[in-house]
Amino acid sequence: MTFTSSLKQRWNDADSLVCVGLDPEPAKFPARFANDADAVFSFCRDIADATAQYACAFKPQIAHFAALGAEDALARLIAHIHATHPGVPVILDSKRGDIGSTAQHYAAEAFDRYAADAVTANPYLGRDSVQPFLDRADRGVVILCRTSNPGAGDLQDLVIDGRPLYQHVAEKVAREWNTNGNCSLVVGATWPAQLKEVRAIVGDDVPFLVPGVGAQGGDVEAVVTNAKNAAGTGLMVSSSRAILYASKGDDYAEAAANAARELQDQINRFR
Amino acid sequence: MTFTSSLKQRWNDADSLVCVGLDPEPAKFPARFANDADAVFSFCRDIADATAQYACAFKPQIAHFAALGAEDALARLIAHIHATHPGVPVILDSKRGDIGSTAQHYAAEAFDRYAADAVTANPYLGRDSVQPFLDRADRGVVILCRTSNPGAGDLQDLVIDGRPLYQHVAEKVAREWNTNGNCSLVVGATWPAQLKEVRAIVGDDVPFLVPGVGAQGGDVEAVVTNAKNAAGTGLMVSSSRAILYASKGDDYAEAAANAARELQDQINRFR
Repeated sequence: MTFTSSLKQRWNDADSLVCVGLDPEPAKFPARFANDADAVFSFCRDIADATAQYACAFKPQIAHFAALGAEDALARLIAHIHATHPGVPVILDSKRGDIGSTAQHYAAEAFDRYAADAVTANPYLGRDSVQPFLDRADRGVVILCRTSNPGAGDLQDLVIDGRPLYQHVAEKVAREWNTNGNCSLVVGATWPAQLKEVRAIVGDDVPFLVPGVGAQGGDVEAVVTNAKNAAGTGLMVSSSRAILYASKGDDYAEAAANAARELQDQINRFR
Repeated sequence: MTFTSSLKQRWNDADSLVCVGLDPEPAKFPARFANDADAVFSFCRDIADATAQYACAFKPQIAHFAALGAEDALARLIAHIHATHPGVPVILDSKRGDIGSTAQHYAAEAFDRYAADAVTANPYLGRDSVQPFLDRADRGVVILCRTSNPGAGDLQDLVIDGRPLYQHVAEKVAREWNTNGNCSLVVGATWPAQLKEVRAIVGDDVPFLVPGVGAQGGDVEAVVTNAKNAAGTGLMVSSSRAILYASKGDDYAEAAANAARELQDQINRFR
């Protein structure tokens, strides 16, 4: 199965467009993990197990592991998800981007070392910097288009030939880079108008990874109505902190499951 | 000492603008490392020790370590350089870029976990994505401007208000982002005309990290004459493969030293 077909299958099987972000921050962990030497793995595993039934994908964010020197926990977490929830693809959120010969090593990091089904990538260096990811036809490449952060427009809104840079990125990806049909785009939930514009450019077949609901303030109704495709899918609406840290008590897993299910329900009302 | 002051001091002390790139690829290591379980560290350490006297900086490229699961070797390598060659700053080449809250974790990765003196960063997400790096006033932030790879122009050459994107990046960095005086720019050796344009935009005080001489084909004379500042410095001319893999024999360290010294001499002829 390719990432794209796994994702389509999962949208239907789980009736969910929720992507559960796994961003471990030990200071926010429930008290019971205070003496767990393997807390990063244990906490993320518990969240994954509790939320899998509501998830179309998992998205571990690698900086959170790297800052802690927890690469081993990340590898074991992804292996655990593959073994325990085999229908749920894993996107390694690392936003890599480098010259082609180096990008090959980043592709090896994401796809071979961590066995991720997809990886996020930065387009600033151009097509040859993304090619080693694109060449792995069974894996997904989720390319930054219009990001969710306040400063997104600093570069992404600069206007070339009457259209902002992020629209040029969307067009390049859809028309030129997506020859293996394995590209997705990152478009932030905080920019509903831009979600609509990008969907109009790329059509129904390019999935969007949509961060920015929850802690960053994106509105679910606006996201879904503006960004869904004709089938009422096409989205991985990502939530991290609002799910992971829904409770600091012993009900953390249940609270995370509830938060994921509520987001699923909220999304499904507008599909 | 800040990164910027360390670098200036080192340009003078070593009379060198050579940045030695540390990109370990075990398949290219000399035969003597075949049975060394710690080959990634041992090889890079030997290269660093052999080339330090000719180097204004070292630049380990993290993808090469990450693909091998060799984060521990990277940490020990940087610690070794700091201990053994304290005047030579270390740039962690990781080209990170993410929303602010995540970028804080990447800053912790580069500056706290690995104790790097500087880090490379991607500007596509805008200022707030770089801010956690900029805020570390004692460390350097080396921002991608015009990269050395063939596809660099795909996005970087798109024209906004009569000027290509990479020039807008150069201007933003020099005029807006560099409030702590800790910014440098990546401008590839493969684009001599662009080196000259960017130097004209940013003036003498923003150092350039210039990859692309050697294996990528950049011309040293064109780089130095177009990109040096008024003091005949301002450059970190990076070479990786041509130094690291100068010999596969037992003379690998001596060959690396010779390659670094030759690049130093070549550069100094045109300063």
